[in-house]
Order: sequence, then C-alpha cells, then structure tokens
Amino acid sequence: MSIKKVGIFDSGVGGLTVVKEVRNNFPYLDLFYLGDTARLPYGDKSEETIINYSYKNAKFLLSYDIDLLIVACNTSSSFSLPFLEKEFKFPIVGMIAPGAALALKKTKNKKIGLIGTRATIRSQSYRKEIENIDNKAEVFDASCPLFVPLVEEGFFEDEVTEIVAKRYLKGLEEKGIDTLILGCTHYPVLTPTLKKILPNVEMISSGEATVVHLKDNFGLIINPVQSSSKKGNLRVFATDTGTHFKEVAEKLLGEKIELESAAL
Amino acid sequence: MSIKKVGIFDSGVGGLTVVKEVRNNFPYLDLFYLGDTARLPYGDKSEETIINYSYKNAKFLLSYDIDLLIVACNTSSSFSLPFLEKEFKFPIVGMIAPGAALALKKTKNKKIGLIGTRATIRSQSYRKEIENIDNKAEVFDASCPLFVPLVEEGFFEDEVTEIVAKRYLKGLEEKGIDTLILGCTHYPVLTPTLKKILPNVEMISSGEATVVHLKDNFGLIINPVQSSSKKGNLRVFATDTGTHFKEVAEKLLGEKIELESAAL
Repeated sequence: MSIKKVGIFDSGVGGLTVVKEVRNNFPYLDLFYLGDTARLPYGDKSEETIINYSYKNAKFLLSYDIDLLIVACNTSSSFSLPFLEKEFKFPIVGMIAPGAALALKKTKNKKIGLIGTRATIRSQSYRKEIENIDNKAEVFDASCPLFVPLVEEGFFEDEVTEIVAKRYLKGLEEKGIDTLILGCTHYPVLTPTLKKILPNVEMISSGEATVVHLKDNFGLIINPVQSSSKKGNLRVFATDTGTHFKEVAEKLLGEKIELESAAL
Repeated sequence: MSIKKVGIFDSGVGGLTVVKEVRNNFPYLDLFYLGDTARLPYGDKSEETIINYSYKNAKFLLSYDIDLLIVACNTSSSFSLPFLEKEFKFPIVGMIAPGAALALKKTKNKKIGLIGTRATIRSQSYRKEIENIDNKAEVFDASCPLFVPLVEEGFFEDEVTEIVAKRYLKGLEEKGIDTLILGCTHYPVLTPTLKKILPNVEMISSGEATVVHLKDNFGLIINPVQSSSKKGNLRVFATDTGTHFKEVAEKLLGEKIELESAAL
C-alpha cells in the first residue's frame, strides 16, 4: 500500500504538534488537517458526544480521498477508534497504541506515568493497551484539565502553569516513574515546565510516537534523499475560523497556512 | 402580560447563577433551563458560531411554551440578541442591558470596570450600552479567558486563581474604577477572590442585574406573600449529560435536580 495523502483531525489546534512531527519526518506526504474548533474542547465531554463529533470529522476528511487517517486527539482516540474502524474499514492511526508502544520501549523500571484530559484518563485506554502488551508494566495516571486552557492562553512557561503542574504531577513523582506519556496533543509545549518538576523522567509526545508508528507499521521512510525535491501540500481546515486559531496554528507549525472553513 | 413560564439558556453551568437569583426572588415562576454542554465554551468562538448555537437553544426552549426567554450567557447576549429578537418576535432578556443599567445606578465616579470572555469584550456590547445611556461614563475592560476553566475546575478561592486574577485586574485597578461588572455568569463564585484584589469596588453580577430588570421592566414582584404556597417547577436540560454537569449544577443551585437530555 502506498501512502500519499493523510487526513489528520483534532478538536482544535493541539493536533498540529503531530502534524509538525509528521511533516518534518515525512515531508513528501500531502496532509489534510481538520480542527473542530466550533465544538472544542473534547476533554470534558461524554463518550457519546466525542464519538459523534469524531465520526463527522472522519467523514469530512475521507471526502479528500486520503489513504490514511490519523486521529491526532488522545480523547477522541480513547473513545472513538473502535467505532471509526468498524464504520469506515479504512486504515486509521490513533494516539494510544503508538504512545503505549514507545513508552514501553523507553521505560527501564516499567513504571510509566500518564497525563491527559479527564475523559482520556477516565477511559483507561492507555492502561489497557500497556497492560495487554506487558502485564508487568505499571501505569500511574493524573488528569490535568487546566493544561489545555493554559496552553491555549500561551502560558507555556509561566508561574501559574508551574504551580498547577506541581499539583497535578505530585502523585506521579512519588511513584517513581521513569517515563511520562504526554497523553494530549496540547502538552508538548509544556515540556520545559514538566522537565523542571520531573527532570529525570523521559517525556513521550504523541507526535514522536506517531512518527515511530508510521515508520514501523506502514513502512514510511523518514526523510528519504530522493523525495527532497517535492514538498507535500498542507491544507488546514477548521469548523470555526473566526477565532485566533490561525495565529496559534502558525506558531505551532512554524509555517504560514491558508485557513479554510469546514461546515460540518 | 402575565409571566409564568421562563426559559433560560447558557453554554453550560454558569447560567445557573442567574437561575438561582431568579428562583430566590420569583419562586412562583416555572423555569426551563438549557445548558449547551456539548458545545461549550462559547467565549472563544466566532460571532457566526455563537449566533448559530444560540438560535438552536432558543428554539428548543420556545417549544416549552414559555412566556419569556432569558439569555443567561454574556457571550451569547453580546452577539445573538438582535438576531434572536428579529427571528422570534418574542420577549427576550439578555445580560448586557440589565448589567449596564445596574452598574450606572451604582457607580459614583462613573468609572466602570468590565471583565468577561474574550468574545464578550471583543463585542464591545457593554461599552456601547453604557455610553448610549450616559456618555460621561467611562468603561475599562479586561478579558479573563482562564476564569471559566478555573471555575469549572472548582478553583474558586485558590492561589492560582488569585495570581491569574491579579494579572487580569491590574489595568482596571490603575484606572480607579468604583464598580465592576462581572460580565460572565461563571464569575460570581470568584467574588471573594476579586474582593481581595479590589476591596472597595462594587461587584455587579448578572443574576442580581437580571432580577432588578425583571422587576422594573416586566412588573414581576419579588417574593410576594400570597405566592408562598406554591413553588414553581425547575426543569434542567443539557445537550451533553455525560459530564460532571449535574454535580456542579446542584452545588451552584443548592438544590437537587433531575437532569434531562436535549438533542439539538
């Protein structure tokens, strides 16, 4: 199977941290990104609502004749992946399996920390995945509901973020984790703050995990020499284009975009 | 016109601070509340999206044969009120006119502060309303995008909330305001924290302002003796019932509710 066009969705801007990693490593791919900004955030919503929104997002991206769909939202991946796979019978990559696999590869003491939205933690999706692969591994989790709004407000390295992070991470620190899954695509920008609190812990981002997964499971080649001549296209859609999405998106991606409207 | 049934909507749980005031003062009314929890928050979304959601909420409540509609969301009031009034030709009360009127009644130095979501502040709705009534009054505003998530997380009186509030209010303090409009129905629970920072400033909540407005403009009588025999019904609907809405709602209202699902 040859993969050329990839669809990626998230509830908002967070999934662009995954787009950035994918684009840096597989620059020849054509990417179609959808941010469901009209209905974000997903992290405090119910399973039924999350599945409903994810289904609509997937359907929109499939209309662009993509070869692969990436659900670049941990909350959506936690709840809607089995439903989407059954409904669409199409190759779909979520955030859970890649993140779990990479954490197991990196941990030495098998004590893995996990942070995410309230919904992601409630789903127990990472725990099930990790314990299925290695029943000796232990998962310690903490929901961090204020991290998404803090990132959306640009409080990346800030006194407030640090106080909040210290509270959220206290329990995990005491458990002696050596690896921490950043189980939300918003979190990678908080890495410097998280590193201050947990300096000896390896941080796993969804973007990095997705790249490893695409290489290992879909045979995609990282930065092949012969592809350097042609960079793939990136189209970015949002369900609500009237917000400060474009500005934050360009900051996260490090490139200019033309934002298109998606009516779902 | 005799008012018996009143519909009230908000993007989520915040509008219940208005319900509480209305119910305390006019206990004989039957109230129908809708929280649009599946699509909250509105405060960072675009005008078009906010109007679209508000229209759907209003339509849902009008199906209950109500006599009056209260838009208990400052963001929605700021953008959708003219549209809703034109569309429905029906008595509708928003949060802006009542809040502006009460602030003008209470201010002595005519320096009025306003805090709200990014969308409410951007709309300039309060400023226009206040300057229309009294062009000598000055309005100084500050958007406080982190207050809603902090309230949703129960950080009412907290070190974090205090640091954030100090930053948001700094500019207003320097302007010498004597009155502060809490231009978001989530904010009244932050009053003790705000009072610490601005001890000599009068705080105006949307709930209090709505009660004064209903009394002055619709002739509703506050706690009439003869009505004490029968308390009105309160029905509470949400577009996403799977979240922690019920728990927070009961805490805000101080009474038990039976949460009903609204499919919009």
